[in-house]
Amino acid sequence: MPTYTPPVRDTRFVLEHIVGLQGHAGQPGFEGATPDVVDAVLEEGGRFVAEVLFPLNHSGDQEGCTRHPDGSVTTPAGFKDAYRQFVESGWATLGNHPDYGGQGMPHVISTAFQEYMIASNMAFAMYPGLTHGAIAALTAAGSPEQKATYLPKLVSGEWGGTMNLTEPQCGTDLGLIRTRAEPQADGSWAITGTKIFISSGEHDLTENIIHLVLAKTPGAPDSSKGISLFVVPKIMVEGDGSLGARNAVSCGSIEHKMGIHANSTCVMNYDGATGWLVGEEMRGLTAMFVMMNAARLGVGLQGLGVAEVAYQNGVAYARDRRQGRALTGAREPAEKADPLLVHPDVRRMLMEAKALTEGLRALCLWGALQVDLEHKAVDDSERQTAADLIGLLTPVIKGFGTDMGYRIATDMQQVFGGHGYIAEWGMEQYVRDARIAMIYEGTNGVQAMDLVGRKLAQHGGRAIQAFMTLVTRKLADAPADAAVAAYAAQLKEALGDLQSATLWFLANGMKNPEHVGAGAVPYMHLLGLVATGAMWLDMAAAAVRLKAADGEDAAFLDAKLVTARFYGERLLPRTASLRREIEGGADAVMALPPALFLAA
Amino acid sequence: MPTYTPPVRDTRFVLEHIVGLQGHAGQPGFEGATPDVVDAVLEEGGRFVAEVLFPLNHSGDQEGCTRHPDGSVTTPAGFKDAYRQFVESGWATLGNHPDYGGQGMPHVISTAFQEYMIASNMAFAMYPGLTHGAIAALTAAGSPEQKATYLPKLVSGEWGGTMNLTEPQCGTDLGLIRTRAEPQADGSWAITGTKIFISSGEHDLTENIIHLVLAKTPGAPDSSKGISLFVVPKIMVEGDGSLGARNAVSCGSIEHKMGIHANSTCVMNYDGATGWLVGEEMRGLTAMFVMMNAARLGVGLQGLGVAEVAYQNGVAYARDRRQGRALTGAREPAEKADPLLVHPDVRRMLMEAKALTEGLRALCLWGALQVDLEHKAVDDSERQTAADLIGLLTPVIKGFGTDMGYRIATDMQQVFGGHGYIAEWGMEQYVRDARIAMIYEGTNGVQAMDLVGRKLAQHGGRAIQAFMTLVTRKLADAPADAAVAAYAAQLKEALGDLQSATLWFLANGMKNPEHVGAGAVPYMHLLGLVATGAMWLDMAAAAVRLKAADGEDAAFLDAKLVTARFYGERLLPRTASLRREIEGGADAVMALPPALFLAA
Repeated sequence: MPTYTPPVRDTRFVLEHIVGLQGHAGQPGFEGATPDVVDAVLEEGGRFVAEVLFPLNHSGDQEGCTRHPDGSVTTPAGFKDAYRQFVESGWATLGNHPDYGGQGMPHVISTAFQEYMIASNMAFAMYPGLTHGAIAALTAAGSPEQKATYLPKLVSGEWGGTMNLTEPQCGTDLGLIRTRAEPQADGSWAITGTKIFISSGEHDLTENIIHLVLAKTPGAPDSSKGISLFVVPKIMVEGDGSLGARNAVSCGSIEHKMGIHANSTCVMNYDGATGWLVGEEMRGLTAMFVMMNAARLGVGLQGLGVAEVAYQNGVAYARDRRQGRALTGAREPAEKADPLLVHPDVRRMLMEAKALTEGLRALCLWGALQVDLEHKAVDDSERQTAADLIGLLTPVIKGFGTDMGYRIATDMQQVFGGHGYIAEWGMEQYVRDARIAMIYEGTNGVQAMDLVGRKLAQHGGRAIQAFMTLVTRKLADAPADAAVAAYAAQLKEALGDLQSATLWFLANGMKNPEHVGAGAVPYMHLLGLVATGAMWLDMAAAAVRLKAADGEDAAFLDAKLVTARFYGERLLPRTASLRREIEGGADAVMALPPALFLAA
Repeated sequence: MPTYTPPVRDTRFVLEHIVGLQGHAGQPGFEGATPDVVDAVLEEGGRFVAEVLFPLNHSGDQEGCTRHPDGSVTTPAGFKDAYRQFVESGWATLGNHPDYGGQGMPHVISTAFQEYMIASNMAFAMYPGLTHGAIAALTAAGSPEQKATYLPKLVSGEWGGTMNLTEPQCGTDLGLIRTRAEPQADGSWAITGTKIFISSGEHDLTENIIHLVLAKTPGAPDSSKGISLFVVPKIMVEGDGSLGARNAVSCGSIEHKMGIHANSTCVMNYDGATGWLVGEEMRGLTAMFVMMNAARLGVGLQGLGVAEVAYQNGVAYARDRRQGRALTGAREPAEKADPLLVHPDVRRMLMEAKALTEGLRALCLWGALQVDLEHKAVDDSERQTAADLIGLLTPVIKGFGTDMGYRIATDMQQVFGGHGYIAEWGMEQYVRDARIAMIYEGTNGVQAMDLVGRKLAQHGGRAIQAFMTLVTRKLADAPADAAVAAYAAQLKEALGDLQSATLWFLANGMKNPEHVGAGAVPYMHLLGLVATGAMWLDMAAAAVRLKAADGEDAAFLDAKLVTARFYGERLLPRTASLRREIEGGADAVMALPPALFLAA
């Protein structure tokens, strides 16, 4: 019953006026991103996901994945054929390196396409999503032979990939890993242990699955410093590249989850499975973090993708469903009731969803541009600034983005009233699916600690300084137009809250690091509101500029200005209370003795 | 896997020191509530729900209800037997009127028990919950014969009750009802139509089900003014009270819902079913609203109940699960990792849950006391003030209480990390169950409109004045203790935000009612924070007083003071941004033309 139309026009607006894609046209890494190619990706890619993946979203949720007695897993009806089309149409290779058969498109373009894929079918999008993680890790740390053996098939989508970190006793704290790797005479390793929550761990979409597995080698320290990374194929790959024997890795069960039912989240058993060391022994976390940073941006994009499809359906229902009358008198007196859209509280929810979704789209795509610049900009300082900014904002895009994604999905479900609670309408699936994005790839609390505990402090606070300088410059450069000026004043106040909270951490964190920990999540939200707010300043400024130039549909630009105003009046005020929560410090948070959390 | 222990000690603290139950001992309606009886209700009732209902919560969710081809419905395994024990132990009759076999306990006591029942098994608690709604409507508007026919069996729990309002095209806007009632020669009416989302609509727990149904009589105006209320038994009741023929009402299907799977939410088909008018023709909404107000407080209690059980499990997991180290150095160096409880962000979530849950418990029980006083106080002005206060706070307890219940359930799920997303751990069920409470009995947006559109304005703002006077008096009466004074200063500031926002509505609502509608939900949250904050002032003051008197365990009282401090430093600051959102008004909310919500 739900609908989805890829928001191509909005993506294009962001790419043109916020990312400034044309300005990068001549730079290394952007060669392939000519306007016609970008248009084709957005239009054709959008059509593909809307026509092929979206129709399988609800049925995939209802059916889920099935594990058979022999340990094999089948995905829901239609998934295998859709995946085949996905690979044959070349969508798997979009952002990958041409050395291994990829199209070499900038990250910012593949990110735009990924949003559409997630919005169409988040559980489906996770299969190629995990493959990208494996590609990233092997590209960063694999040997030339490993790259040659695995990357072409992973890039083409013929094989899938997974990340195996979590164990029953070990989540965030990877030092607790028990999976062992024993060296074998032929240079391989025998991997033994149990991994849980393995997304896409076993399925029928690809002829092979390449598992990247964290394990401990003999004598390694019993901490995160003793972890190594291994590549463990489901089916052994012979010297000539053909598939050989089945490896000793199998799916023990499929987890019963709240959502993303169409992705097979597996318990994986390694029973002396043959693996090969990726990178150096006991340096596994370094390679894993390359993969995790990319994955975290991808998870932030899940917040955005689900928010967008939920928003579109909220709007459709609010236009269609009639209930009650406008407070200012019947808007459509010939009908028995007015559409829900006349009610201020329904609009409040829709406008909040619109302001956050469009703002997060701009932030995700601008963030993806920083990933491109970090790796490809010719200028050293440009690369460093991009690396600083995306390092700082990765936990924000993941943590703030997915918290907002869940809130938006919940609000859009609320627009549907009782129907929102009924499975057939599809809205409750968006809430269940959105929920996992706040948890995996490091819970949002872990993201917040990465932000305030690592990213703020690194290099003497260089990254947060760069961010504040950037926003200050945007404020200084904002056009003199009255609407933009009013918005800029609100953003400036919010930036002041961010500066104040940052200084408070600086002044108090040395005395007691718990002062920083207790404010971590509020700070992540504060920075998220300001970063998204900075995007809205850019969008409002662009709208004013384009209106003056008569370059785009004025109604579309007016909508940007109204939405920016809403963001300034309704969302930015929250930074003040977040600042006060942060400046409350840790005392009240930490004071209660553990025994007193529950009255005896 | 989850655990639940009824928080008897905390309930008793609230009843003694916030509700002041002993002070009401001699008053009409409180006769039965002697200390030993109250203790027995809390202890025995708590034991019953924990031992009999709680073990069926997860299995009931997994199994759900089953509709058979003949239209009959069976509840999950164990429900029928548990319901039989519930009736036989007399828990069904607790708060009901002695005239019909009830125990006549004050509403505040039955409310305390209801919280435990909901926390144990929300879907189960809905069966007697809906019966209470039917009892309330028949008591308010039924004829003497109707009362004699139905009330004794409903009160005893031998029969169940339902409320039939919603139809496919008609939710909040009851004027859109299409179900028709045709008068019959014998004085009965033939009811024809389809009702949806009927909680407990058909099941195997009771030998009969008494449906209260809204329908339109011939020639009635095509608006909410034309609605009448009918009583329609599933099985006809003969003159001698025995059961006769099956009525023409049946369950067409069970809705597939996000949660509360163990409650049978039915599509009910009325095919010329025999019914009798309850109260006057075309005055059905009046009787329905008696029922709805009671039901709304019950739904607010669902927010509290689910929050409490989720919180208890969050605490248990945070104590048990070890992951990472305290920021200030290993807390338990002999173990491989510290418990989650050492992490400030985990504590932040737990303390927020604790502060809101205990605050909402006080608010719900204090509110239930107002229901008792509204009906039973001897003094006219005491009755009026109680009626004003509970009228004002009913939408707040429902709307704010369930929004917080969902947030707490989500946060407690977050404490579990990946395990929170897995069905076996039970946390995801709490989120799914808590979600419906924000929707039914009037969505929370509808609650907020009831608050700002009706309750604020009634009688020249008498109720909000009474509330603000009450809080001001509490502030004036607060003990001079430093901890209480610091908290009182924060509450005073929050009260100032409430006063400011109320005056803003007064000044701007006449010009444009949409200014009020656009701020309705933020205002409901602002009032909820202040009302819960007033309860925390009372609890902190009581803790200080009792510590000085050496009357209770000092550690329990210290925990109250720490939690009050947390509430003041971490939750009350939010009122400032809510005020600013409200004072932003409707312009940005309403400005966007409907066509521009989605870019073409």
